[in-house]
Order: sequence, then structure tokens, then C-alpha cells
Amino acid sequence: MIIMMNAPTAEQINRVLDKLRHMGLDGHSITSADKTIITASGDLSACNPELFERMPGVNKVVIVGTPYKLVSREFQSKNTVVSIGDVRFGGDGIPVIAGPCAVESYEQLYQAGVSAKAAGAAMLRGGAYKPRTSPYSFQGLEKYGLEIIKTVGREVGLPVVSEVTDPRKVELIAEHVDMLQIGTRNMQNFVLLKEVALSKKPVLLKRGLAATIEEWLMAAEHIMSGGNSQIVLCERGIRTFETYTRNTLDLNAIPVIKHLSHLPVIVDPSHGTGSWRWVSPMAKAAIGAGADGLLIEIHPCPEEALSDGPQSLTLANFAQLMAELDALAIVLGRSINK
Amino acid sequence: MIIMMNAPTAEQINRVLDKLRHMGLDGHSITSADKTIITASGDLSACNPELFERMPGVNKVVIVGTPYKLVSREFQSKNTVVSIGDVRFGGDGIPVIAGPCAVESYEQLYQAGVSAKAAGAAMLRGGAYKPRTSPYSFQGLEKYGLEIIKTVGREVGLPVVSEVTDPRKVELIAEHVDMLQIGTRNMQNFVLLKEVALSKKPVLLKRGLAATIEEWLMAAEHIMSGGNSQIVLCERGIRTFETYTRNTLDLNAIPVIKHLSHLPVIVDPSHGTGSWRWVSPMAKAAIGAGADGLLIEIHPCPEEALSDGPQSLTLANFAQLMAELDALAIVLGRSINK
Amino acid sequence: MIIMMNAPTAEQINRVLDKLRHMGLDGHSITSADKTIITASGDLSACNPELFERMPGVNKVVIVGTPYKLVSREFQSKNTVVSIGDVRFGGDGIPVIAGPCAVESYEQLYQAGVSAKAAGAAMLRGGAYKPRTSPYSFQGLEKYGLEIIKTVGREVGLPVVSEVTDPRKVELIAEHVDMLQIGTRNMQNFVLLKEVALSKKPVLLKRGLAATIEEWLMAAEHIMSGGNSQIVLCERGIRTFETYTRNTLDLNAIPVIKHLSHLPVIVDPSHGTGSWRWVSPMAKAAIGAGADGLLIEIHPCPEEALSDGPQSLTLANFAQLMAELDALAIVLGRSINK
Amino acid sequence: MIIMMNAPTAEQINRVLDKLRHMGLDGHSITSADKTIITASGDLSACNPELFERMPGVNKVVIVGTPYKLVSREFQSKNTVVSIGDVRFGGDGIPVIAGPCAVESYEQLYQAGVSAKAAGAAMLRGGAYKPRTSPYSFQGLEKYGLEIIKTVGREVGLPVVSEVTDPRKVELIAEHVDMLQIGTRNMQNFVLLKEVALSKKPVLLKRGLAATIEEWLMAAEHIMSGGNSQIVLCERGIRTFETYTRNTLDLNAIPVIKHLSHLPVIVDPSHGTGSWRWVSPMAKAAIGAGADGLLIEIHPCPEEALSDGPQSLTLANFAQLMAELDALAIVLGRSINK
Repeated sequence: MIIMMNAPTAEQINRVLDKLRHMGLDGHSITSADKTIITASGDLSACNPELFERMPGVNKVVIVGTPYKLVSREFQSKNTVVSIGDVRFGGDGIPVIAGPCAVESYEQLYQAGVSAKAAGAAMLRGGAYKPRTSPYSFQGLEKYGLEIIKTVGREVGLPVVSEVTDPRKVELIAEHVDMLQIGTRNMQNFVLLKEVALSKKPVLLKRGLAATIEEWLMAAEHIMSGGNSQIVLCERGIRTFETYTRNTLDLNAIPVIKHLSHLPVIVDPSHGTGSWRWVSPMAKAAIGAGADGLLIEIHPCPEEALSDGPQSLTLANFAQLMAELDALAIVLGRSINK
Repeated sequence: MIIMMNAPTAEQINRVLDKLRHMGLDGHSITSADKTIITASGDLSACNPELFERMPGVNKVVIVGTPYKLVSREFQSKNTVVSIGDVRFGGDGIPVIAGPCAVESYEQLYQAGVSAKAAGAAMLRGGAYKPRTSPYSFQGLEKYGLEIIKTVGREVGLPVVSEVTDPRKVELIAEHVDMLQIGTRNMQNFVLLKEVALSKKPVLLKRGLAATIEEWLMAAEHIMSGGNSQIVLCERGIRTFETYTRNTLDLNAIPVIKHLSHLPVIVDPSHGTGSWRWVSPMAKAAIGAGADGLLIEIHPCPEEALSDGPQSLTLANFAQLMAELDALAIVLGRSINK
Repeated sequence: MIIMMNAPTAEQINRVLDKLRHMGLDGHSITSADKTIITASGDLSACNPELFERMPGVNKVVIVGTPYKLVSREFQSKNTVVSIGDVRFGGDGIPVIAGPCAVESYEQLYQAGVSAKAAGAAMLRGGAYKPRTSPYSFQGLEKYGLEIIKTVGREVGLPVVSEVTDPRKVELIAEHVDMLQIGTRNMQNFVLLKEVALSKKPVLLKRGLAATIEEWLMAAEHIMSGGNSQIVLCERGIRTFETYTRNTLDLNAIPVIKHLSHLPVIVDPSHGTGSWRWVSPMAKAAIGAGADGLLIEIHPCPEEALSDGPQSLTLANFAQLMAELDALAIVLGRSINK
Repeated sequence: MIIMMNAPTAEQINRVLDKLRHMGLDGHSITSADKTIITASGDLSACNPELFERMPGVNKVVIVGTPYKLVSREFQSKNTVVSIGDVRFGGDGIPVIAGPCAVESYEQLYQAGVSAKAAGAAMLRGGAYKPRTSPYSFQGLEKYGLEIIKTVGREVGLPVVSEVTDPRKVELIAEHVDMLQIGTRNMQNFVLLKEVALSKKPVLLKRGLAATIEEWLMAAEHIMSGGNSQIVLCERGIRTFETYTRNTLDLNAIPVIKHLSHLPVIVDPSHGTGSWRWVSPMAKAAIGAGADGLLIEIHPCPEEALSDGPQSLTLANFAQLMAELDALAIVLGRSINK
């Protein structure tokens, strides 16, 4: 159950919270720019919405049957559209984010960025702080990498997204990029989610490797209840018994998320499959499944990449894929460019 | 390693098998209508193909690095096309098999069959012998069900496919249907695979719920090495930790199978997701991923179905989906209707 | 809900079935030597047990909330004890079944059997019909293997168990062995389960590689509702993302099964882990978890085994393990030898 | 490959790193109190150890074939013993850590602590900062909780362990507890691992919900290469398709870890199974599998717990379990109490 109020007084809020407490329910008050929402959790079966609707300051009571409240379609039936400059996730367009796994040099990123732009990509990606399984692998160019991506983004005319892994670095990274990425290993790093919520930057929230759809939506709920509703979900493959592909890209999650939540959801077939060979067919499949965007790794020279080379498309392959995707999108009443 | 011979004598075959044995390798001789193939397994690293190519009766030696031999692309680079009447799996067309999970009555199947045909389906499905988790669930109409599907298929003008679960019933079922289905629970029922291989009917081989792609291809190898190469593979969802969908339809398997094998591969989004709600988006996704066909459950009255009602499309929804699929297929240079 | 009757007339049974049908419930009548049981499935919430208890021929109504009825603890609170000669599964003893994966020769099995007996094993195992992933692997000695295991069992004084994979071979195998094994790939081969139920021989029912505990109990229900209640369940590892061990032996299933069912449950750490190195610690762990028995692969010469050599213990290692297990069992108030 | 030096000069270190670079290898230098280690990764096949052993400052070259170096048994054959006061993990003893999931109040923790001590527990646990799936669940008493656990630990005479989730709080928490816990969701939070490495406090590193054994050891490698080798690994259940238990406690990991690594490994059957009902049998199983310790949740009043009540043992059940565990441990030549 969720109770929404418009510009209530502190006393009005406290009276609602008190009433919830007396009924054995757990109430939380969330205030953003223009409104206050109070969420209640616990056994709501005996709770009559009318009791609250009559209270001063209360506008409406919405019953939400799922553990996630604010991100649910029950709470908001209309699609959320996340805008980054001209790029819009959640509308009719299907923006494609492209770029290398890691920022390796200005030259590498510039070359990737120019080609991405030319092929119709809407945003540029590139990691500066890389979470790596091995402490002995390349860990990213860190602050220098941030400066590169900021510069290249401006030069080629694409907004940029980069991953944040440290709550102490959220502010720094937010100054350099247009969108913050939460990687798969940090989907339940709640400390980091809280910081990202406070930053108010749009967030790209990747699904955890073994996260259920419900846990993924709960992670988004952490961000949204922290005051930031500019969230784009990203399916990037789950861990299963199948080892031929590095992960199992779970496209079923796309229609399910569109049904359960108003948030846009995009697909990363590069990490999702782990090999460039499967990226094009799975990108087309993602469009068929109804994805609101794509995230595709490209590299001027995949065989020399410092990170995840085998899953990156060459710039030429990417350009060809974009043309094919656009034709598909049009049949479905959507479009890749715009 | 595979050694192929044209009409060799028994003595020529035995000399090859003897030579393999002397080298510590395991040889198997497979003879079908027009040719004999000898497969060898074991440590082939020290084995020189030329030693065999010079032997009388030997035509060619092909090195196949995978545990599956006959079904691999290394062995046969050209796509296998499985033909059932006019229906062709593995070519440019994308035939759709439609029908109810179980044959329940003549009326039910006739209604489904007429609608399937009208909407552009290429084949009619319906189970007469149902493998059910519970001994207390509906187990199928058995022989009577076979007669119904045979009759309805002829009346509506569609070839039919039905599941076989018992090696003692393969002959009976083969007399009634145009294609034999091996269900997910029987993918590694090798006794059944052997009988199906002997029947020479085209086979629809569903992927096991927890089968790796390699195990799936090995199951096909059992059938093909048994003398039947008319095999259509069918992805129908794997078991993962995600429980929101009944299974996780693994579309990644489509491009992977097309790469590893020459056999056609189709997709069953009905069992793959377990809910009619996800069937349409996942059917479109399957086309995007490059599937060679679809298997879709339809029912005149899903809420009254004796088996798997929740995942069946209504006849109206199916007709609409078919129109959408055809538009998509055309963009990809393929076609749903023939 | 289960309704039990003592020697009812056909008319009495039919009246109960009719009444169930009128209430929209699905009734099944199961008659074994001394009693008749009627199971009902469907929405039982509105069904009053008293309505049935007053009917002629009805002895008692038991409400069982799970989809499995006869195998549940709700239906029978006392442990089932499965007896094979002097060997008892489900009592205080913890019988150990030992032997090679496959019967390879009289000499091999005799050597294994003598050592197994000397070390305190209660039964001898050995496969004559082997389900193998590859059609090119050793498929077992078949009928000749059955004769060997029957002979060796008598000579060394141990009852024997062997796998059945073909419904047409159940009778033949039942003539040669004291217990029929249903392997992991056939756990949901319902055709085979039905034949095994009819044979009345004790059954060793291995858990499917990706079977939930509920599905496993449902497979047992197929056998028990078919008239055979001499069932021993066997945990042998499930398929997970972890690949370091061949399977993930799921010992959690032991206390869960003991809670949900009255059937005995044993553990196969050899297949469960896939390497002899983990067999001893996991065998001890199984005893700690409360297993009613063990199944351990041994081989006179593991490195020469035709099947699953890497997971077999040497005869010397097995003897040492048995001594350690016995000491553990005694602390827990049980015993390995008898 | 790992090259170890005793008190080398900076120049000597640089020369080794240079040489590695020239060979196309990636070198890392790790200096702790008394020694310097240089790890090398890349294609080591063509690298001759003697080339390095002759260099000034180099003591020994050790070839390690796994991606984890410092934590491997190849690198250090002798067990690491982690000592916290009198408590020793990795020796003959099997220390038991007990306590509630979350610190809720002084009274709750004191009661749990007194009972834990009386029953023979070696350490007290309790969470002050709780990572919770829902933003609306109890998040812990935070700093106040730390003060409680510090006080109670001293009063009852048990060292204490609590979870750290925020790199900015490592120092604060380290001041209050004797051991830092990295929870399952943060196993690959490399930013946090780095801070914990710097703190030099003993670390309890829980396995990630979907982490392979190799990834788990790589996480430990992050800590050990950061300068902290006081690491105790903790198996706590992995995510599988089985849903009857909350997680699947993977006891196979115990003998595997003991084989691959010199670090001690303990078992948490409370989170591992998710229900108090399976805690005792799985704790006994863990001892059988060779665990170096246990972590068991207890609560004075489980049904009122603010977090994970259903999996907590009552104080009475815990005392009984401890007596049973001790008897088992003695048979295996180990002991629960010291």
C-alpha cells in the first residue's frame, strides 16, 4: 500500500506514520521535489484504505501487491521515459549505447566514438573503474579514463555513461558523465545504490548475475525510494548450468519487466553472451522481445582489447548490425535512430 | 574423425575397424541406404588421416573435433533441410507448428486445426500420450487421440506431429503422424531414441530441461548414428534459478546451434515461458535470433484446457501473432508462410 | 485427500469415485494386495471429509496437502523399511551398496564383490545396460552382464542391484537382480516407472539431474500408486552453475526428504561429485546429514575402468572409508554393518 | 608463477618487473611486513624460472597453475591458521561462531551471548549494518549496534564478528569487532575488499550466492594480494533451481577448498538452508565434510526476530546441537571446544 500526499506538513506525515505503526505496519516516508509518498509494508490484509484517505494531507491510497512499490506498474501505469539530452529511453525509440568495455586511450575511444555516432548510436560507453575478477587484471584508467570519456563524448556529440563502483567516487564520476552505470556485481551493493540515488543522475542498473527479476526490481526500488526515478534497467545475462555461452541472456525478462514495471529496460547482448559471434542475432532477438534499447560493445581492434575483447564487435560489423536493427524496429512501429 | 565409404564390402569395413582397434581407438560403423560411415573416438592426436584414406573402400577422412560427429557442421557444412510434405525446416521459410498441448476431443482439435491452417500454420500438433509429473493428472487419450489427430490433419490439410514416450509404441504412432516428437523428459531416453532412429520418420527433438547444448547435440547424434538424419531440434526453455517464468527460454541456443550443427532448430515459446502473456514477444524474439521455425500452443478455450491451458494462445491471438511474425520474417529475408 | 477402504466391493469404490466426480474432483483408485486407496485431486477446500467417512466401505479419510499423496509423511507417519534379504533401508542401519559403474567382466566384478563384502558392504552394484551420453561410448555387457552380476552376487553373498532403462527389459532384469535401479536420466520416464511398479521388486530411484525434491517425490508417487511401495530414494547430485565438481551433491535433500516422506533416502557421493577425491568426505557428510544408506563406486583398477573410472574408489580406499563411516555412525546411534 | 624476495631493494624489484614486461607478462609486486612477492600472469609456458632465480634479491620461484596465486596450496602447502585471541581457525579445533542475524538490543544480544558461551561457542556474531533486499526492511542499529556487540563480547568473554558493507565504515567497524565479515552480496565488491585488506583485521569472506569456487578464491586473492592473509572462507549456500530450501548449501566446496587452498573454510548452515529445521543435520554434515568451523544463527526468541527468524535456532536447540557436534568431531580426531 502506498499513500501519496501533496506538500503535506511534517505533522500530517507523522500522523500517518503513527497510524501505520498502531496497525503493526512498517511505514516509510519518501519526499522528493514536489511530493511525499508514504510506503507501508507488513500484513495489509486487514487495512482499510479509506481510513487513510480521510486523513488531512492524504491525496490517494494505492494498493500495490508486490514487495517493490514505486517501480511497479500498479503504482504508475504510464511508462517512465528517461531523458539524457535528446536520448529518450522508454518511448518509441530504441537508443543504442555503444563503446568499448574499458577506456584504454583517447585514440581508442575517439575512434570508437566517431564510428558509433556515424552508425547511429545514441550514447557512448566506456569503463574507467573496472571491477575485475582477478586483482592482476587491468583495473581501468580511473580518473584519467573519466576525462577521456568526457572529452570524447563532447567531441563526437554523444552523451556518455560509465560505471561507478565506489560510493566515494559517485560525485566525481557524476561530474564527468551523463549517466551512471551500476554493474552486475554491485546490483545489491545497497550503500552504492543509496549514493547513486542522491546524485540525481540517470542510472543504468544492470541485472545481477544471479538476481531474480524481483530482486532486480527491489534494487531499483532502493534507488527510487532514495529519490531518483531516472532508472534504466539492463538485462545482461544470468548464470545457468549452460557453459557454451558465458552467460545466458534472459530475454524473457524483457516482456516480464515491461509488464511489472513502468521503467525502461534495455539489453546488453555483448556481456549477455560473451562472444561477438552471438551479438548480432541476440540484438535482433532483443528488438523482437520489445527491448527499449541496446548496449553493445565495440572496439576498433577487438583482438587487442585490454578487457572483454572476444565479445566486442568491430566497427564495421556494428555499422552493418545497426542498419539491420533499424529495419526490424520499423516493422515493430519503433525506430533505432531517434 | 569420420571415415566415409561408398558401398564398401564387409571385409573393407572390418579392416578399417581392426586398424582403429590396433591404434587404441573406438570405431563404429553406420550404414544407411547409400553409404557407410565409420566414426572413431579416443585420442586421435597421433592418428594420421592418410593411413586410412589409402585403404580400399575409403573415400574420405573428415576430422571432427567435437564429441558429436554426424550432426556437426564440421562433418556437413550445408544446412540439412527436413521435409514433411510441402513443409521444409532448415530453408528460407520459417514453418509454424500450432495446436493444443493435448488432444482432448475431435471437436477441440478440429477447431484448433482449422484456425491454425487459416492463420498460416504449417503443421498441427497435439499430444495423445502425455508424460505428466503427477500420476493423477490427465494422461492423454492415447490410441483414440492418435486417430483424432490423424483424421483432423487430413481434414484441415496439415501434416501432424505427436509425442512418443514408449519404445513399444513408436511403430503405432508412426502410422498415425508425419513427425515424431521426443519430449524434454525423454531427450536422454536412449532406448527411445534408438527406436525413433529405426522408424525413419522425421523427428522433433526437444531440448532437455537441464541439457547443455552439447548433450542435446549428442542426443541428436544417437538418432543420426542410428540411421535417421531427419531431425529438427526444438529449444523449449531450460531450468534456472529464475522462477517468475516457468522456464528460461534460451534463445542464445539458436545462433549457437546454427553455428555448431547443420540441423534446423525451432523454438517453443509456449513451454519455454509457461504463460501465454510472453509467447508473442518471445516468438518475435525467436525470429530475430534466427530460428528455423516455431511451435506454438493454441487452444479454442485455454481456460478449459486439460493440460497447460495458461500457456496457450487463443485462436484470435494466434492469428494476430502470425501476421506480425510474417512482417518480421520478410525484413530478415525469410517468410512464415512457405 | 486419501480415502482408504478395506476390501471394498467394486460398487462401493464406484460410488466414492462418482461422488468425487460430482464435486469436480479427480479420483483415482489404487488396489494392492490387501487394501484399496482412493486419491482425490483438485480443489479440496470445500470438501468435507465426513461426507466420505460415512459411506459404506470407507475406513478413513486422510488430508494430504501436498501433490504427492502416498509417499508423504502426512499419509504414513512411520518410516517405510525396504528389506532385501537381510538388508534393511530405513531402519537404524546404514547399508552401503558398492561396486563398479559397469560390469566389465566376471573377474572385475568378482574382485570388487569380494572386497566390498570384506569391507562390510551390504549390496553389490554394477550396470549391464548403460545409458551413455555418446552413442560411441561403451554401452554395457547387456544380458551377459546380468548373468555375471547374478552369479557374483551369489558367490560373494551379497544381494545385487542393476539399472533398468527399457520397459521391455524390466522382467528380464528383475529375474537377475534383487533391486532395480532407475537412473537419473529416467526419473521422469513414466513408462518405465509404470513397468517397475508392476514388477514388485524393490526400486532404487535416483534423483533427476535437475529434478526438484517435489518432482522426485512425484516420480516415487508414480511407482507407489502403481502398486509398489518398496522404494529407496537416492540423491546423486544436481546440476548447478558450479563446474569444479561434476555435479553438486545436494545433501540438504536428506533432512528435507526425511521430513516430507516416509521413504528411505540414500546418497551416491561418487556420481554426486564426479571424483574419487571428494567421495570420502562427502560420504561422511551424508552420514552426518542423516542418510539411510550410501552407494559408492569401487573398481579394482579405476584407471582402466570402461566407465566413470575417475570417480571410483580403489578397493583399499573403500575398506578404509568403511571403517571411518562405522565409527561416525555409532556416535549417531546408527551402524554401517547391519 | 610467483617470485618471492626477502627485503629486496626497490631497484631489484623493478628489474624483475621490467624483465616480466619484456616477456609480455603482467607483474605485480606485493610487499607486506617481512617480505615482497611478485606475481606474474599471462602466458607462462615459455618462461624459464631459472632466469629469475638468478636475479639479485630473488629467493625462490614458485609455479602456480591457477589464476589465484597467493591463496593456492601450490603457493603454500601448509594450512593457514587464523587466530583471534584464543580462537584458531584452520587447526584441529572446529570453532563455532554463534549469534543472531541482527543486533536488535543489548538484552537480546546479551542473552544470546551468554547462552552461546555456555554451550561452547567460540565467537559471537551479530549484524549492525544489514544489507537488505527491501529498502523497507529493518536495516540494522548501525553504530549503536556496534557498541552493543563490542560491550556484550567483552562481558560474555567472546571475540565478536560483524558485517561491513561500506568502505567508508571499515575503520569504524574494525575498532569495535575482532573480525570483519564480507557478506555474500559483497563478495565481488572489490572496493570493499581492498579496504578490508588494508585494515589487517581477520576477515570472514562469505561465498557469493552464485560464485564459483574459483571466483571465491579470486576474491580472497584480492584481499591477500592487498596485504591481509588472515582470511576465513565461509560457505553459505548457492542459488540453484531447487526452491524447497532457500539456498543449496554446497558442502562439496569444503573438501575442494581444502584441496585447492591453504585457507580455513567454515560453514553457515543457517543461511545455507534458510530454515532452523535443517540446521542441525547440515551442521553435522559439515563436520563430516571436514569444515574448519561453523557459523550458526541463534536467537532468544526466533519468532520475534527482526531479520531471518525462521532460520535461527533457539538457545536450547543450540546447546543440544553443540553436544552432538562435539561427539562427532572427536571421532574425526578434532574437537568443537578448543
